[in-house]
Amino acid sequence: MMRFSTLLRNPAPWMCGTRKLPGIVISSRIRLARNLADYLFPTRADASVREAVREAVLPGVRGIPGMEKAFVKGMEDLPGVERRVLVERHLVSREHAGAEAGGAVVINRPQSMSIMINEEDHLRMQAMLPGFDLRSAFTHLQEADQHLEQQLDFAFDQRLGYLTSCPSNVGTGMRASVMLHLPGLVLADQMNKVINAINKIGLAVRGLFGEGSEAQSNLFQVSNQTTLGESEAEIIDRLERVAGQIIQNEIQARAKLLAERPDFVRDQVGRAYGLLRHARIIATKEALNHLSMLRLAIDLGWLPPQNEGDGNLDLVILDLQPAHMQWHAGHKLSPEERDMRRARLLRERLHSLPEPDMQGGAEDASADTPPNES
Amino acid sequence: MMRFSTLLRNPAPWMCGTRKLPGIVISSRIRLARNLADYLFPTRADASVREAVREAVLPGVRGIPGMEKAFVKGMEDLPGVERRVLVERHLVSREHAGAEAGGAVVINRPQSMSIMINEEDHLRMQAMLPGFDLRSAFTHLQEADQHLEQQLDFAFDQRLGYLTSCPSNVGTGMRASVMLHLPGLVLADQMNKVINAINKIGLAVRGLFGEGSEAQSNLFQVSNQTTLGESEAEIIDRLERVAGQIIQNEIQARAKLLAERPDFVRDQVGRAYGLLRHARIIATKEALNHLSMLRLAIDLGWLPPQNEGDGNLDLVILDLQPAHMQWHAGHKLSPEERDMRRARLLRERLHSLPEPDMQGGAEDASADTPPNES
Repeated sequence: MMRFSTLLRNPAPWMCGTRKLPGIVISSRIRLARNLADYLFPTRADASVREAVREAVLPGVRGIPGMEKAFVKGMEDLPGVERRVLVERHLVSREHAGAEAGGAVVINRPQSMSIMINEEDHLRMQAMLPGFDLRSAFTHLQEADQHLEQQLDFAFDQRLGYLTSCPSNVGTGMRASVMLHLPGLVLADQMNKVINAINKIGLAVRGLFGEGSEAQSNLFQVSNQTTLGESEAEIIDRLERVAGQIIQNEIQARAKLLAERPDFVRDQVGRAYGLLRHARIIATKEALNHLSMLRLAIDLGWLPPQNEGDGNLDLVILDLQPAHMQWHAGHKLSPEERDMRRARLLRERLHSLPEPDMQGGAEDASADTPPNES
Repeated sequence: MMRFSTLLRNPAPWMCGTRKLPGIVISSRIRLARNLADYLFPTRADASVREAVREAVLPGVRGIPGMEKAFVKGMEDLPGVERRVLVERHLVSREHAGAEAGGAVVINRPQSMSIMINEEDHLRMQAMLPGFDLRSAFTHLQEADQHLEQQLDFAFDQRLGYLTSCPSNVGTGMRASVMLHLPGLVLADQMNKVINAINKIGLAVRGLFGEGSEAQSNLFQVSNQTTLGESEAEIIDRLERVAGQIIQNEIQARAKLLAERPDFVRDQVGRAYGLLRHARIIATKEALNHLSMLRLAIDLGWLPPQNEGDGNLDLVILDLQPAHMQWHAGHKLSPEERDMRRARLLRERLHSLPEPDMQGGAEDASADTPPNES
């Protein structure tokens, strides 16, 4: 069985993979909600039922192809800091970290699949991949789902589909999402417009940690809102089309900014670089926003592509989060201590990052603009 | 006669001198207001009277010992940008830059004395020196005053003393001031308390450009409010004592900050350094505030002492001001253009400034704290 420290030392490719430039789609994720027909759903079940559910599903979950040597833990057996680390890595939800009785998590070795037991539903299974690859994520998850379906009796209605605790998941029980890095739209002050447009067509835009969380580091999760009346393939198709459109919007926003306000973009990148290299006290949110500017600089060719070493920005982003900081420190840290250690971590990890070479950009970018706009 | 470009190329020692550490007193200044008895005072005089006054005083002013090869100009003969440059160098007042008829300025070659003709009074004479040296400044000015008094009939009342346009200057006509750099008191949030205390004892605290101007770069002018009922020596004595007290307050504030919140101070200095080195767009005010942190770093031994080259912070502070930027550019610049050029100027001029070495500080500083406070 995988140990927590192994999991932590070996972040998944979808957390810190090398992406094709421009690296707008950070990762793709599919989640399925499933419940057992013969047990009360978790939101209504007491501890003994929840524990019975866990016992009932665990053998099947561990037998899913690819789940060999998985990380398997009852949430109540995990120290609080480790639960929060899993949240910061998007391997369990914030709600699941509350560690109610019967809660458990199973994570495969490459951390491309994580299954929460007794979250809002008996089973919340998710598959994650780097970049823009919803179909492969769905294929992986479908295999797991089919494997479990042979052994477990899922709550399923012929007319409605899969039944879930919250009606918003009834039907496919599927949530497909892409994590998008959209600094261009944010800097151009167009993000609200984009969010409104996406909401109107029935998709949701959320922050870094899903529902109710704030956008940080210019990262936005776009996902389907509805699970009823559309097949899994249709949901993925639509999300792919919309995400493709947002990517185009982002590319155009970047090109327009670079053509019209190149020094504004350079200033944002330069300031981010200067502060990350020289601040001595820095909060997570500020650090994430500056790191977004460095990601943008990489996309624009102003900084070399990411390598896989210590200075990898995705790794740095993982490690600067509060629970990660405390896990690495080996003890609880006050917010003030974290902000100081975070600044040191950034100075050390970004020590060999060269100064952004921002000579080009404006010209290169305008070349990308469609001819009728330039 | 000194040309404007010569004046600009050779800033006075009080503008960019090497100061003893901690360099809290940037410069000392004495100003005397004088009027001719036989002419209407400038605020009531028309153009012809003002011009007559100028003709009447100029020969005497040019004959003051040390005024050989002075810079002598009618304000209306100076282009607007040059008038504003003189204001930015504190050689003429903001009001005098308005260039009303008869206005003139005479500046000696070392720029340690500047005489405004037809400002609020017929003569406003000021002497400036680097560091904390009000007495020498007064001695220089007294020589000039005595020289003029032999040739001109000053408006003088036996009971009141020298008569001036504004009653607040009647008596000695003297304003003595020191320019203090007080980042410690500002960072410790004690500056308002200090200002209130100073006001209560009849002294004034003003911003970088005197009355009504904002404090920038943590620089404050402290000067006497009253000119009546105290001799020149008493005014200087009192200002020296109070300034000495403020210096002690500043030293203690720095020591306390370094003992109790060393990382806060390091963060402020580090951020200032990072932004000055990497921003691409920067307004005067922001730049001045960051440069104040670098001055502090020099005082704390975190940066090497100022040299006299291009990177001298005082020189940089002069050159980044709006009129200086436009004079050097040779044409008018929009605020946006200035902010971009200012950022480039800072990057270029501070290019060889090493990263502040902030290892020490807390320990060194606590050694300075009085024993009963540590």
